Amino acid sequence: MTQPSQKALVPFVSVANMMALVNATGIEPMLRDLAGYIEADFKRWPEFDKTPRVASHSSDGVIELMPTADADNYGFKYVNGHPKNMKEGYQTVTAFGVLSSVANGYPILLTEMTVLTALRTAATSALVGKYLAPKGARVMAMIGNGAQCEFQAMAFKAICGIDTVRLYDVDSKATEKAVRNLTDSGLTVIACKSGEDAIEGAQIITTCTADKQYATILTDNMIGTGVHINAIGGDCPGKTELHRDILLRSDIFVEYPPQTRIEGEIQQLDPDHPVTELWQVMRGEAQGRSDPRQITLFDSVGFAIEDFSALRFVHNRIQNTAFFDQLDMLADPDDPRDLFGMVRRAA
Amino acid sequence: MTQPSQKALVPFVSVANMMALVNATGIEPMLRDLAGYIEADFKRWPEFDKTPRVASHSSDGVIELMPTADADNYGFKYVNGHPKNMKEGYQTVTAFGVLSSVANGYPILLTEMTVLTALRTAATSALVGKYLAPKGARVMAMIGNGAQCEFQAMAFKAICGIDTVRLYDVDSKATEKAVRNLTDSGLTVIACKSGEDAIEGAQIITTCTADKQYATILTDNMIGTGVHINAIGGDCPGKTELHRDILLRSDIFVEYPPQTRIEGEIQQLDPDHPVTELWQVMRGEAQGRSDPRQITLFDSVGFAIEDFSALRFVHNRIQNTAFFDQLDMLADPDDPRDLFGMVRRAA
Repeated sequence: MTQPSQKALVPFVSVANMMALVNATGIEPMLRDLAGYIEADFKRWPEFDKTPRVASHSSDGVIELMPTADADNYGFKYVNGHPKNMKEGYQTVTAFGVLSSVANGYPILLTEMTVLTALRTAATSALVGKYLAPKGARVMAMIGNGAQCEFQAMAFKAICGIDTVRLYDVDSKATEKAVRNLTDSGLTVIACKSGEDAIEGAQIITTCTADKQYATILTDNMIGTGVHINAIGGDCPGKTELHRDILLRSDIFVEYPPQTRIEGEIQQLDPDHPVTELWQVMRGEAQGRSDPRQITLFDSVGFAIEDFSALRFVHNRIQNTAFFDQLDMLADPDDPRDLFGMVRRAA
Repeated sequence: MTQPSQKALVPFVSVANMMALVNATGIEPMLRDLAGYIEADFKRWPEFDKTPRVASHSSDGVIELMPTADADNYGFKYVNGHPKNMKEGYQTVTAFGVLSSVANGYPILLTEMTVLTALRTAATSALVGKYLAPKGARVMAMIGNGAQCEFQAMAFKAICGIDTVRLYDVDSKATEKAVRNLTDSGLTVIACKSGEDAIEGAQIITTCTADKQYATILTDNMIGTGVHINAIGGDCPGKTELHRDILLRSDIFVEYPPQTRIEGEIQQLDPDHPVTELWQVMRGEAQGRSDPRQITLFDSVGFAIEDFSALRFVHNRIQNTAFFDQLDMLADPDDPRDLFGMVRRAA
């Protein structure tokens, strides 16, 4: 059989290649690069074809497709969220994604996105922190020390300049793992005995827990003034992390309101509760933090444009490298109408 | 670096392996098997999580995601439709798809679906023909002799027992290609000079053209009584093949009304024009053909459940075969919370 033609091949970045790419780039430079791509795409927000992600819910979790497109490229991510997976030795979140050419619909990249999603989520959080955290914030509380934890810590170090993380998790083994992984990170790492302990002296509070239920990781009396809350874990219907009273005292910033109203912390509020869109803050068209005593809240659920930015980054980054394989994924008959003949001739 | 674990691997069916699988199975047996899977899934239609496909339109074409799920599996297809591609040496339609476990969200199959979509579309058409075509139909007109043409002819032979196809295309080279490919098919193949010529004596009329515009491949005066029209090409907003008057004389059968109202021939009709859902016909809960003189119309746009059936078929078919490769697509750290540590240790 003849080899598939160039048109039939789609560059594929495996998990091994993604890890090699991260390590060759360095985690902090890669987080900064990703944040740069995300910021550039947020600043041209109106150019994108946007839709809330398409979710398929079951009793155990959710599987989602997150598409978006600009004039040149189409991208989507497949991602699941299954809180119980961890106990069974599986990832809570796995993902892969595809970038395509709008002009002819052909995929130009298939990549693992489990690692990449961890990076882009952290890069987005820290990018938003750069706009909203109190000036000179150096201490971050990190509640929930699962798979996303260290990425968040490194992103806030690389992009916002924090020097200390205070870790807490209901499972102390998770905290021990994070402490171990951050040993040589350049951060001062403090394992804490409770959520209250962790937020002591922190100007930035990140919550990243995974239960699929209405939880109250932060209660109202825990939160003083002059903090930025980076709420990552509440990201599907019925899954929140913050007490409603905190929301009422906060200025709330979101990615894409139609999606966040369904999935974010603000599903606890009236559907017309005011929120500010981050792209407008980044473009200077809406106010970010206006007062050091203000409580700002990033009600993060993750939006398709962040994945698009990450796909765009990887696509550019792997050119002229060995960080990908070629996958024979697209049929390419000599005469494009002769699909049937191609199949028969392969016999 | 250590090898990825079993959990990290997703079976991948390349174009080369799909073609090998088709040829090892035989085209007609494979079309019959696929039709069997599709029929079984139509008969349990209410069990599926259904949504109209998510389309991203551009001036040149469309890129779509088509997800659906039952209690055990989630499936989706990525598919584009770019009519101008053919002139530039690309496929009008390319596709790939994924089948996953609902229980943990992990993909269990990634497969090319350009070839597979051609097969499942043809199998669906012929399956519907089995329910709706006039008894004893032996002659099919095939208007539009592009990539889908021969698959349709073989499916109607394998599943409905036709013995003759009458081919017509505005481009005679397309017809010549189809004649060539069907030489040893067991069908009597007749190249025709016009659409009118092609439908002469045909009890089944298949239209499968690709222009993204309101076209009139069939006009009202061409269509007598006692035929089944299998309208494949009209499958996105602004793209139809039949004159509206034909629709008004036909009993119209559809896959999933919310999608067909947007994309099918019936976009030309009032939104409450009566249509019959095929799954109800297959379950014996709605009338199919009731009169030999009736005009039945399958307003086919392609629905996610057909792709789900095809994914299910391929997933079952490749077990204990060599028709797939293992792809390192999912991150699988020893401790599922230790994604960061896995990346660092890969350095």
